[in-house]
Amino acid sequence: MFSLVGTIMAKDPSRVLIFDTTLRDGEQSPGASLNLEEKLAIAQQLARLKVDVIEAGFPFSSSGDFNAVQRIADTIGTEDGPVICGLARAAEKDIKTCAEAVAPAIHRRIHTFIATSDIHLKHKLRKQRSDVLKIVNDMVAYARSFVDDIEFSCEDAGRSDPDFMYEVIQTAIEAGATTINVPDTVGYTTPAEFGDLISGINLNVPNIDKAIISVHGHNDLGLAVANFLEAIKNGARQLECTINGIGERAGNASLEELVMAMHVRRSYFNPFLGRTADSTQPLTNICTKEIYKTSRLVSNLTGMTVQPNKAIVGANAFAHESGIHQDGVLKNRLTYEIIDARTIGLADNRISLGKLSGRSAVRARLEELGYTLNQEDLNDAFSRFKELADRKREITDRDLEAIISEQVQQPEAFYTLKLVQVSCGSTLRPTATVTLQLADGTELTKASIGTGPVDAVYQALNHLAQVPNELVEFSVKSVTEGIDAMGEVTIRLRHQNVLYSGHAADTDIVVAAAQAFVNALNRLVAGSKSITLHPQKTEIL
Amino acid sequence: MFSLVGTIMAKDPSRVLIFDTTLRDGEQSPGASLNLEEKLAIAQQLARLKVDVIEAGFPFSSSGDFNAVQRIADTIGTEDGPVICGLARAAEKDIKTCAEAVAPAIHRRIHTFIATSDIHLKHKLRKQRSDVLKIVNDMVAYARSFVDDIEFSCEDAGRSDPDFMYEVIQTAIEAGATTINVPDTVGYTTPAEFGDLISGINLNVPNIDKAIISVHGHNDLGLAVANFLEAIKNGARQLECTINGIGERAGNASLEELVMAMHVRRSYFNPFLGRTADSTQPLTNICTKEIYKTSRLVSNLTGMTVQPNKAIVGANAFAHESGIHQDGVLKNRLTYEIIDARTIGLADNRISLGKLSGRSAVRARLEELGYTLNQEDLNDAFSRFKELADRKREITDRDLEAIISEQVQQPEAFYTLKLVQVSCGSTLRPTATVTLQLADGTELTKASIGTGPVDAVYQALNHLAQVPNELVEFSVKSVTEGIDAMGEVTIRLRHQNVLYSGHAADTDIVVAAAQAFVNALNRLVAGSKSITLHPQKTEIL
Repeated sequence: MFSLVGTIMAKDPSRVLIFDTTLRDGEQSPGASLNLEEKLAIAQQLARLKVDVIEAGFPFSSSGDFNAVQRIADTIGTEDGPVICGLARAAEKDIKTCAEAVAPAIHRRIHTFIATSDIHLKHKLRKQRSDVLKIVNDMVAYARSFVDDIEFSCEDAGRSDPDFMYEVIQTAIEAGATTINVPDTVGYTTPAEFGDLISGINLNVPNIDKAIISVHGHNDLGLAVANFLEAIKNGARQLECTINGIGERAGNASLEELVMAMHVRRSYFNPFLGRTADSTQPLTNICTKEIYKTSRLVSNLTGMTVQPNKAIVGANAFAHESGIHQDGVLKNRLTYEIIDARTIGLADNRISLGKLSGRSAVRARLEELGYTLNQEDLNDAFSRFKELADRKREITDRDLEAIISEQVQQPEAFYTLKLVQVSCGSTLRPTATVTLQLADGTELTKASIGTGPVDAVYQALNHLAQVPNELVEFSVKSVTEGIDAMGEVTIRLRHQNVLYSGHAADTDIVVAAAQAFVNALNRLVAGSKSITLHPQKTEIL
Repeated sequence: MFSLVGTIMAKDPSRVLIFDTTLRDGEQSPGASLNLEEKLAIAQQLARLKVDVIEAGFPFSSSGDFNAVQRIADTIGTEDGPVICGLARAAEKDIKTCAEAVAPAIHRRIHTFIATSDIHLKHKLRKQRSDVLKIVNDMVAYARSFVDDIEFSCEDAGRSDPDFMYEVIQTAIEAGATTINVPDTVGYTTPAEFGDLISGINLNVPNIDKAIISVHGHNDLGLAVANFLEAIKNGARQLECTINGIGERAGNASLEELVMAMHVRRSYFNPFLGRTADSTQPLTNICTKEIYKTSRLVSNLTGMTVQPNKAIVGANAFAHESGIHQDGVLKNRLTYEIIDARTIGLADNRISLGKLSGRSAVRARLEELGYTLNQEDLNDAFSRFKELADRKREITDRDLEAIISEQVQQPEAFYTLKLVQVSCGSTLRPTATVTLQLADGTELTKASIGTGPVDAVYQALNHLAQVPNELVEFSVKSVTEGIDAMGEVTIRLRHQNVLYSGHAADTDIVVAAAQAFVNALNRLVAGSKSITLHPQKTEIL
């Protein structure tokens, strides 16, 4: 019952499973760390997107990760929800902690891994090949004693001796692994090489028909998506990917590019999946209309911006649809056919509400957008909505989403921003006055001058908060078009070599900047407490 | 003498030519339009990067494009400079105008094109195949009457009947084409299909040995780079690409990803280029150390931001190098080997100057960075440097580059910002006072309230300038780390369905926002004058 995916796949080799690792590998992007509420909001949206598996975290790495995986398993891991997966090194403590974290999910998976390349064996693990085979056998069997759905990864597969890797995979499947994941850890493989790697596994591992082949990759040379598509042609049936392609360094393979490439080029991929070329059955389970919204949510909460020329979800990807050359495209649709923006839910930014809209209208539209709030959160959202409607004529769906993503971010309020006021200009010394409330209710006020209004605000906040930090990045984007649009500010602070991000939206970018800084300080205070409790996250896969 | 590239290539089929189309296809990104000075600055940097060919524009499309191509040909098209290329439809007027524009360059090329797919023939050209063959023959020969270096493109090659396309290519080569370009216009092709297309041309066009095969592609499904690398394996020897992958919709293939993939995976690509696998000869002429600087320059001037997880040039692409996990990587360099950041010139952001640095120190550092300024520009840069040094303790190379890119942007100053002052905050009505000087010297001042400080400034500026426009996008990024960093503001305005961008940097983001808006208004006024003079740019290739 618990290895549902494995069972489905054995019966339907013509479907490609989407394994989303935005919350595990994606969250490892420098400065992209998410708090519990944010992870939950993303997991909920991933469930709406209908991903098959959510890798929710690495439970043994920190108590924060453990809590997040457990909470997601409990909330999202319903009977018709996705498989909830946790990552664990091939060691008993890791696996046991992971099993506890995923336990509340109806469909749950443990994903365990060990390196199989000689270079890792020698420099990192300091083990012999025979040691690795024994660990794989024992640890997969141990994981299987908790759940029936086990994924095993050969770390650094691309640089492993193929014969040894085949032996490791065979051992893992014998010990009970139901999915075998093949990562291109360093992101250096070309499509033809990666296809050959997968085809080699298919041809040389005798019991490979008992498991699903999965792929994982990084985009250092811009080839992750192409590598995965070539892997599908050679028998892979699960893709490990992230929203917007976020992740370590240049990131992971991008979910939206993979899904849309298969969707648009169905007739090309169908025969590789054992279907007739003209089959119209979708190749994945993904609800493509949720792609754009998911992309924005992940970008807002992680602070990882999406460039305008990003495929599928960039602001220019469908520029023809945005009113500029609509006539031309309508006339020429056959000659310059592009993806219909509605397929990814792009055309849905309705101007839905205004100053006179009531609480029930706001609630109804939020529910249509997929957000179900409890009474307290709804009250909070409604008061933010009213504030915004006083300043902005038309409230669009994106404005509503900005309000919600703002709200999700405020759980550990050690500091509360009570007041900010600023004067600045080309001939003025930028001056800010700020009032900050501490956890015990004390209110402190400070005036500072700076090189600009944001600098003045941050000087004052730093003086009041007394938490050492460096500002590493500051960016602002408008939420929607129009001169009265809200600005979303994202910042990153560094404290003891760890990055903390803060995000806030307001029609006044100085107020948004102050709030984003306070949010980042709150995370820093919350984060630096737990940092020493568990081993630090290390780069994996 | 003028077909130098053709001659070199016939002798050295083991080198891949880089044809940069940032100034032609890249500039077609919505809102990325560049003025003459900006195009020249980018062309100068492309020459330092050592691209083989610069496609500088589409001379017949507008007088702005004509002037830019001619000026670049004159300034950059030196004996040891790159080939300067202009685009022209397969029509006499187009080709003649293009020939005039590229004439000042020592190495010059005309790039002409016509569609070869039935769908384009029927719906766009309304011509028979025999008509197309005659046009190709006549127009290539006509172009050849002006220059010896002719590139011919089969538009929509991917959807053309292969046999007809072979015939068109054979005709073009017979008529004098020295480079044959194969575009994947709609960005839908997969690597294996694109490789087959190139290999088919190599096998079926009898005189193909007399021309270089070039490729052009769009990134709608995230596959442009992989497609090009597969094309090289099948005989292509010229890649048409852009810095940061900018261009129509999801953009073109990214120059830096292509170059670095070939660089990093030399031993894989060498045999396809007829070399031994262990050859250490570079596969392209590109000076990789100029990559990062070129990326920043193009991003600043076009307003097209680069996402942190962009391969090669994203802020996180070398996150290990940025001080966060340096220890880990040093210990593990062998296990998690990534590209050395110095290869692309990333580690070179020296803190070079401060408040006490004199004019000669600034000039010397600018020259080391590759900027040679005349006396007037140097004076201007130095006074901006002094202003900045009063406010910011340490001036880094990126600050200097921001000063220069700022300066390049101010040629047509119809409006000049004389004063901006603002007060705002969580409990204040944001209020701005702005003084704008018109072309005739009149100074106008206006105070406005707004939903935030930027809105208040823009309300005031709009009141004074009286030019109808809509604000489409607003973004701010910090130039460097640190609390006193400069902020770079990029905005886009829409006027009569055309986008105009503005960019400015200042330590005060409200001042930068005001200046960016004025810069955009200046472009709008300059741009909307010329719009009606020439046919609008159409989507091509």
